[in-house]
Amino acid sequence: MENIKVAVLGATGAVGQKFIALLQHHPYFQVHELVASTRSADKPYREAANWIQKTPIPESVAELRVKSTDEPLESVVLFSGLDSAIAGEVEQRYAEAGHVVISNAKNHRMDPSVPLVIPEINADHLALIDRQPHSGALVTNPNCSTIFLAMTLAPLQRAFGVQAVQVSTLQAISGAGYPGLSATDIIGNVIPHIRGEEEKLETETLKILGAFDGERVVPATMQIGAQCTRVPVIDGHTETLSVKLDSRPDLETVREVLESYTGFPQEVSLPSAPRQPLWVFDAPDRPQPARDLEIEGGMATLIGRLRPCPVFDVRMVVLGHNTIRGAAGAAILNAEALVAWGYLSGGRFTRAAADEHRQPVVAGA
Amino acid sequence: MENIKVAVLGATGAVGQKFIALLQHHPYFQVHELVASTRSADKPYREAANWIQKTPIPESVAELRVKSTDEPLESVVLFSGLDSAIAGEVEQRYAEAGHVVISNAKNHRMDPSVPLVIPEINADHLALIDRQPHSGALVTNPNCSTIFLAMTLAPLQRAFGVQAVQVSTLQAISGAGYPGLSATDIIGNVIPHIRGEEEKLETETLKILGAFDGERVVPATMQIGAQCTRVPVIDGHTETLSVKLDSRPDLETVREVLESYTGFPQEVSLPSAPRQPLWVFDAPDRPQPARDLEIEGGMATLIGRLRPCPVFDVRMVVLGHNTIRGAAGAAILNAEALVAWGYLSGGRFTRAAADEHRQPVVAGA
Amino acid sequence: MENIKVAVLGATGAVGQKFIALLQHHPYFQVHELVASTRSADKPYREAANWIQKTPIPESVAELRVKSTDEPLESVVLFSGLDSAIAGEVEQRYAEAGHVVISNAKNHRMDPSVPLVIPEINADHLALIDRQPHSGALVTNPNCSTIFLAMTLAPLQRAFGVQAVQVSTLQAISGAGYPGLSATDIIGNVIPHIRGEEEKLETETLKILGAFDGERVVPATMQIGAQCTRVPVIDGHTETLSVKLDSRPDLETVREVLESYTGFPQEVSLPSAPRQPLWVFDAPDRPQPARDLEIEGGMATLIGRLRPCPVFDVRMVVLGHNTIRGAAGAAILNAEALVAWGYLSGGRFTRAAADEHRQPVVAGA
Amino acid sequence: MENIKVAVLGATGAVGQKFIALLQHHPYFQVHELVASTRSADKPYREAANWIQKTPIPESVAELRVKSTDEPLESVVLFSGLDSAIAGEVEQRYAEAGHVVISNAKNHRMDPSVPLVIPEINADHLALIDRQPHSGALVTNPNCSTIFLAMTLAPLQRAFGVQAVQVSTLQAISGAGYPGLSATDIIGNVIPHIRGEEEKLETETLKILGAFDGERVVPATMQIGAQCTRVPVIDGHTETLSVKLDSRPDLETVREVLESYTGFPQEVSLPSAPRQPLWVFDAPDRPQPARDLEIEGGMATLIGRLRPCPVFDVRMVVLGHNTIRGAAGAAILNAEALVAWGYLSGGRFTRAAADEHRQPVVAGA
Repeated sequence: MENIKVAVLGATGAVGQKFIALLQHHPYFQVHELVASTRSADKPYREAANWIQKTPIPESVAELRVKSTDEPLESVVLFSGLDSAIAGEVEQRYAEAGHVVISNAKNHRMDPSVPLVIPEINADHLALIDRQPHSGALVTNPNCSTIFLAMTLAPLQRAFGVQAVQVSTLQAISGAGYPGLSATDIIGNVIPHIRGEEEKLETETLKILGAFDGERVVPATMQIGAQCTRVPVIDGHTETLSVKLDSRPDLETVREVLESYTGFPQEVSLPSAPRQPLWVFDAPDRPQPARDLEIEGGMATLIGRLRPCPVFDVRMVVLGHNTIRGAAGAAILNAEALVAWGYLSGGRFTRAAADEHRQPVVAGA
Repeated sequence: MENIKVAVLGATGAVGQKFIALLQHHPYFQVHELVASTRSADKPYREAANWIQKTPIPESVAELRVKSTDEPLESVVLFSGLDSAIAGEVEQRYAEAGHVVISNAKNHRMDPSVPLVIPEINADHLALIDRQPHSGALVTNPNCSTIFLAMTLAPLQRAFGVQAVQVSTLQAISGAGYPGLSATDIIGNVIPHIRGEEEKLETETLKILGAFDGERVVPATMQIGAQCTRVPVIDGHTETLSVKLDSRPDLETVREVLESYTGFPQEVSLPSAPRQPLWVFDAPDRPQPARDLEIEGGMATLIGRLRPCPVFDVRMVVLGHNTIRGAAGAAILNAEALVAWGYLSGGRFTRAAADEHRQPVVAGA
Repeated sequence: MENIKVAVLGATGAVGQKFIALLQHHPYFQVHELVASTRSADKPYREAANWIQKTPIPESVAELRVKSTDEPLESVVLFSGLDSAIAGEVEQRYAEAGHVVISNAKNHRMDPSVPLVIPEINADHLALIDRQPHSGALVTNPNCSTIFLAMTLAPLQRAFGVQAVQVSTLQAISGAGYPGLSATDIIGNVIPHIRGEEEKLETETLKILGAFDGERVVPATMQIGAQCTRVPVIDGHTETLSVKLDSRPDLETVREVLESYTGFPQEVSLPSAPRQPLWVFDAPDRPQPARDLEIEGGMATLIGRLRPCPVFDVRMVVLGHNTIRGAAGAAILNAEALVAWGYLSGGRFTRAAADEHRQPVVAGA
Repeated sequence: MENIKVAVLGATGAVGQKFIALLQHHPYFQVHELVASTRSADKPYREAANWIQKTPIPESVAELRVKSTDEPLESVVLFSGLDSAIAGEVEQRYAEAGHVVISNAKNHRMDPSVPLVIPEINADHLALIDRQPHSGALVTNPNCSTIFLAMTLAPLQRAFGVQAVQVSTLQAISGAGYPGLSATDIIGNVIPHIRGEEEKLETETLKILGAFDGERVVPATMQIGAQCTRVPVIDGHTETLSVKLDSRPDLETVREVLESYTGFPQEVSLPSAPRQPLWVFDAPDRPQPARDLEIEGGMATLIGRLRPCPVFDVRMVVLGHNTIRGAAGAAILNAEALVAWGYLSGGRFTRAAADEHRQPVVAGA
């Protein structure tokens, strides 16, 4: 079993808090350092953070002194929940200093040398880090609404081919961070726009579903049209999807393909992996954010209302926990995949030798 | 100026209350009778109704004795907000007794002999009543989410031709009537299903946009795929649309076509007609239910985020007041259209003579 | 360790569901029978219940056939979440048939022969069942807002004497059951009235804080003024209290008295007992329903803003989980107390012999 | 009829916007200048303000250039919705420059030389401005929850004498300004603390109900205990009151005293005055923020559930529109009172001559 010291960047923010909550009893990773803005630096975490989680601040973390983003860090792995205003430059700097940066920020997601990973789908893209232009590594996970779209499209693409998808989202307020939205703006309201969100859904998905040819990722070519809205829900992004396939499977086959989909995290039993990545509901009015988000600890993608589409082929409703599977949990699963892939053996980061490819190792074995 | 006695059927329900509130100072129609279920019958309205409107019960109505659906009525025009469980049979019976039933209920909307009317679009369908198999008339308005879809598609169809549309809705709880949804079910939640709603959007729209050939309505032939959800908003249905057109206009042309669209209600200045039926917003985060629903007294269709679609041609967000333009206000506008068309001159219902077609008369002239 | 078969009365309702969820892994009690209205009877539970809990229906319960309230039951202990419309008569009948009815319904709470118990405060009142006029037993827990008031007043009364209290509540919608309130009525609203609630706070509290003299309960004599409102919160009743004491302790003493308060459940370590019954917060804006309800599994009473009152002596804010400590959890704790008191040894109900008093036994010893 | 140029200070904020909306068609006051922070200065108002009102920005105001707080102003009357962080100093400066500052900010409310006025209650306190140590005038209105408490206590004090009151509030989020509260903090939640609010209720009320002896205001002496909470309601502060009186009137007498209460604004028919300042509801579950706030244009104080109190004498629920009667509308009514009192005749501010007292003049006469 590994015992790897990790730091949380942006530790006082909403994503940073979720990292701390999810890592509390993690079998590999131990929170050793907390990094936040200058305003929080040098304070004990308990004082620096306006803790908004439902579980109390872990004892082991409450008294840690918060470091600023200028300080050198001891941890090998850095989980980044930094605000995108500074994440690009700070993460770059830490990667150059040899750290393995596992980032939830958007800044580097579309860099050609940076893997954008959902390990059920494209764990092999992690090998991009063997050629990154610095001594550390930089790995990203997708946007909180992209991940549930990609998780749903991946098995459909593999089994039937996907030509086009129309997706319309109803996103929770926790996706806007904290303090995020003004209550005046969202109570009893719908805001029909989330800045930059539609572009992320339309571009990140293609990179994730793309093929790694040993050198670079060749994006998938399906058409994606996304429309994003904000609704007065605390946690849980809902998405309505209509998908045009290459072939015309019956619905029962589609369902089987979705429910049986697994990938690398399930094969090697990563600690944070959902046992079953995609759940399909029978009840006509499920899944619902207020009812179903605790399934698989928030790491599953929940699908309902699978039915034919009069315009395309199949349509459905997709739901996921945006701050767990859609953010902090996604990053932790990526870090676990790096461990299983051998990149962190001996508690330090080691690239594959030139001309070699890593083989995954069963986690903790 | 006409002075026509009207009854409200289902007067204690949410739609019935809205009829009463909207008709309070109406230039033609005067609420003369109130009809509700046996439970309410014989009580004064003030006592029978759990009044949920923000304005008080009109004085002229508060003490009216509620009649049961079995009683004969004196009013010429009956506005029906009846529950669909009984609307079909009750409305039929009143039409057979010679009344002009203007219904918001779903039951007769798709009957071939019943006009399903949005007077900006298809006021000419009203002539179907000349051939209805009873001495009265039965006129319906569409479902509360259909109306905003149809209002948006109508000018696009006329100017460019519409091949297909994907629509995903975020519907307010008032659309479920009163008491409607349990608070436990919808606070902080999304319910990704509204029974029968998607079918209504997909079928009613085609009838409304269809052509009346003097005998029957030939439905339009575009493809429509609808996905409907319920969100914790009191009033206001939001819809994201992606539309595939026959031609490829630039966005500015699309915008002009939408903003300049008017129809019969504007031509003859019906009292409840919005001055401008379709409003197009520039601000990237509008329209919003909590901010924009009072425009045009709730009778406008509000459009925002007009932009190209990577899959189809144009996409946009549409919003409307579901209990005004989407229900009671729609029915009242239909009744006003009947007046302008001459069907109610002299305060009683008169069909066109055989082989004749009515010509609209300017209202109140 | 006991292994006692229990039934849940009103199993499909909100409280019934919470009983099932909380009993899922209970060390003594095993859900053996489910009872509901005729409408649900004979159906498998999975089908009969509109399950609204966040955890799935326990496997062991999902396929149980629901019984009607007319059927004889095998279980010794019956947890009642029956609606008050029928609870009075049905519970009475089951008690006469020899069952131990542990009820959350209001009907029998104020019966002189029925103990109204919060076991931290008045576990000794349980001995009332030795003289009940039937072969079974009937034990009740207080109303969901009473319990947090009584839990707060009990240590104050014992330490300082309480002369008067003014309490104003902000109650969650789950307190109204399911479906309970219409979303139309409560979203973005306050309803300044809950039928019968103020009377319950004003009378039940006096019985709970009263003295059992071996024959009957002599109610406490303090003055209580309660005002109850409903707010758009899912779970968690908040109460502002102002208390007039006999003596004038300083705030630090009051705080110590509250935090150190324990009773019978803590002494004998009942399985559902909170370790610390009363938590006192320092942060000026806590406790909050959306943040703090998971403390002690929802079984604690949470106190904040302890400060002097310009009119009385001390004032504070009190919060508790209304469906756990305020309902199903309270009843389960009462049943655990009965076990510890020896009333259910050998898996059947045995009263104390005449002229004897039971002595509590350490649970499971 | 007067025609007085006014400026709005803090014009982009929530209160500033409400001033603009309410003054749109005012018979005396015409919005001539808008003042905001440096960030907004020099921009047209339409651009500077994130307009959150339901009615559109008045045409006459939309293109006004926003001035900074450093600029000299032409207007005689300045309505201040400034943030308390700067209101104290800025308002002082404008008063010294000869302007009549009508402020909603808290900063000067308790200054001995500044009248804190609800004109139904203490319009005579306005005469304090005759002795203010600057050439202009500074008049304040109370906090948004104080006003409804004071409006309710004033007739009770006059008729029966008030010894003590316990008040517990449920305040709307608009009371926190804009953007104000984070949605994450308040959706589905209660925050049991509003900084400084309880102190305002406990002190401002005594000043308002105090007596002006020609030189100074001698505060009233009743005991007031306030507890304040924030609830997820957009507009409308609800308060539960329990009041101890000197005498013991029956409830019907209390009701008559409340309903018949009027003051200076009603006597001289000020334009913004409610016809009936206090409304008493019969329905057991009214008043409610989502239903009743539009009564009297938001300028009334709404009372319900009048009943005896087991601890004090009478208790009741009070509701008011916090941004209209509780803020901008209160200030406008104060300015109207100044006009009626003759302080603004000829469109400029004139104090009473030494040793004189002004007599009110009927507005517009």
